[in-house]
Amino acid sequence: MTASITGAPILVVGSVALDSIETPFETRDDVLGGAAVHFSVAASLFTSVRLVAVIGSDFPDQALDVIRNRDVDLEGLEVVDGPSFRWHGRYHLDMNNRDTLDLQLGVFSDFRPKLPESYLGSEVVFLANTDPDLQLQVLSQAHAARLTACDTIDHWIADKRSSVDELFGRVDLVFLNEDEARLYADTPNLQKAAAIILARGCRAVLIKKGENGALVVSQDRDGARQTFVCAAYPLEEVVDPTGAGDAFAGGVMGVLAASRDFELAGLRRATVTGSVLASFNVEGFGPHGLEPVTRDDVARRLETVREIVSWGDR
Amino acid sequence: MTASITGAPILVVGSVALDSIETPFETRDDVLGGAAVHFSVAASLFTSVRLVAVIGSDFPDQALDVIRNRDVDLEGLEVVDGPSFRWHGRYHLDMNNRDTLDLQLGVFSDFRPKLPESYLGSEVVFLANTDPDLQLQVLSQAHAARLTACDTIDHWIADKRSSVDELFGRVDLVFLNEDEARLYADTPNLQKAAAIILARGCRAVLIKKGENGALVVSQDRDGARQTFVCAAYPLEEVVDPTGAGDAFAGGVMGVLAASRDFELAGLRRATVTGSVLASFNVEGFGPHGLEPVTRDDVARRLETVREIVSWGDR
Repeated sequence: MTASITGAPILVVGSVALDSIETPFETRDDVLGGAAVHFSVAASLFTSVRLVAVIGSDFPDQALDVIRNRDVDLEGLEVVDGPSFRWHGRYHLDMNNRDTLDLQLGVFSDFRPKLPESYLGSEVVFLANTDPDLQLQVLSQAHAARLTACDTIDHWIADKRSSVDELFGRVDLVFLNEDEARLYADTPNLQKAAAIILARGCRAVLIKKGENGALVVSQDRDGARQTFVCAAYPLEEVVDPTGAGDAFAGGVMGVLAASRDFELAGLRRATVTGSVLASFNVEGFGPHGLEPVTRDDVARRLETVREIVSWGDR
Repeated sequence: MTASITGAPILVVGSVALDSIETPFETRDDVLGGAAVHFSVAASLFTSVRLVAVIGSDFPDQALDVIRNRDVDLEGLEVVDGPSFRWHGRYHLDMNNRDTLDLQLGVFSDFRPKLPESYLGSEVVFLANTDPDLQLQVLSQAHAARLTACDTIDHWIADKRSSVDELFGRVDLVFLNEDEARLYADTPNLQKAAAIILARGCRAVLIKKGENGALVVSQDRDGARQTFVCAAYPLEEVVDPTGAGDAFAGGVMGVLAASRDFELAGLRRATVTGSVLASFNVEGFGPHGLEPVTRDDVARRLETVREIVSWGDR
């Protein structure tokens, strides 16, 4: 009995892009990127993935090999005449902060996600960062969904607040980073911010904290809240942080979908797994750090994380 | 068998001050402060403390009641004609960053720590932040020391580097915050920074990360390194962050000294206890958040921390 037989496929909707990435140590152009790519590469380690995205006619076909070689259904990948989504960023010396030097939405600016007929039975749905109104439209199409999650960014929190509010009430899991959580909740305190996000109606909020791991606050059906502090796998070298948050979400959703864990009984282990996937992701440019990773590699890092947080009998 | 009978007393050398503290929510003047105070209040929950410090003749006597009511020996507290050490700071909205508005060293500027005869057998020594040359002088006096630790700040790292280098080679434990660790090691990566500090010769480095807890990297006699990631006790309200790092160190050293754990077998549990002590410390101005705390209160928060980091069988 393997996850590829019993697991639920995940529908992911989001960007597929070409990134130009400058770190203090190296520069790369036309790296395969976009939230849906990083998510898919991570999640497909655990279950099959169904991608909905758009690329331009200029997209180099072989760039997609990374996801084509995995259990990722590309029926929902539209190719449209015009330029692809391109992002050009430069990381600071600390590798935590970055500047966007250029952003060309290209054909992504007219992206109107349509689910192929074969995707309509998807029980697990991940809405990578896009316009929250598009995310809500996807939810309306995904009638069979039993476990839904979204990510978002500061731009939508500031400019489309009411749509983000509605989104946070309609999904089960909200992923966002710590600055976005503070912005949304207008408080520096992440415990308070999580409570404010949960009050919208979602079941758990997963706050991404980079090298400091993640904070997960969930609520049961009686509204009682539970906190989980997830450590990051310790790394001495980071090659490219791009997509770490999407690989994290891919790991979390992949584990939950693989075990059809719609009640979130394994959310803590799924979160640590997501964190480990993120650690592999940042060890190479684009999704290439994740490309060679096996489930055994993941299991070894999970054991390391277990060891570095344990203190019961020492 | 209680710790007060079997435990080793801790010698602490550092500042006793009067703080004026502005937070976004409240302002207080002439609050009892200084690293040695916060350390002593925390550590004295577990073992007896021997204080070496200096105050001016203007120091209000009743301000010392908080430590006088605990198992803290004040024989080493000198009173010198002149003004006491005063610090005036203002916290930003996030309660993590602060500006020093005024600093008057007063009689602390001529502080030359001398250990009373009755302190000379101290086996556990904590050198709170002061001039590293003074810290080294104390080490030279403490002939019976079996477990030593120091704290420092950016100022000494920048201005007295060679003394700090020597200090890090002569103590067992180095406490410092994450920015100071990065500054000392000239790298944004805390794993690398810890390795560079350990290379000086100490046995463990405890990097304080505020709301993100602490990172502890230790090395055994063969030079093999071990990492421990310590979560912070989650708080929704912080009243005054002043002295959190000193209360943390007081908890760590108090637990180690109480069990005469000179081999650091219980360093992980001691670290989590220190983190819990820091969480109480920030719930009141000065050391008053810690004042009413019992060991049972500490044990309850330890259980909460254990719960929020566990993921093995969920």
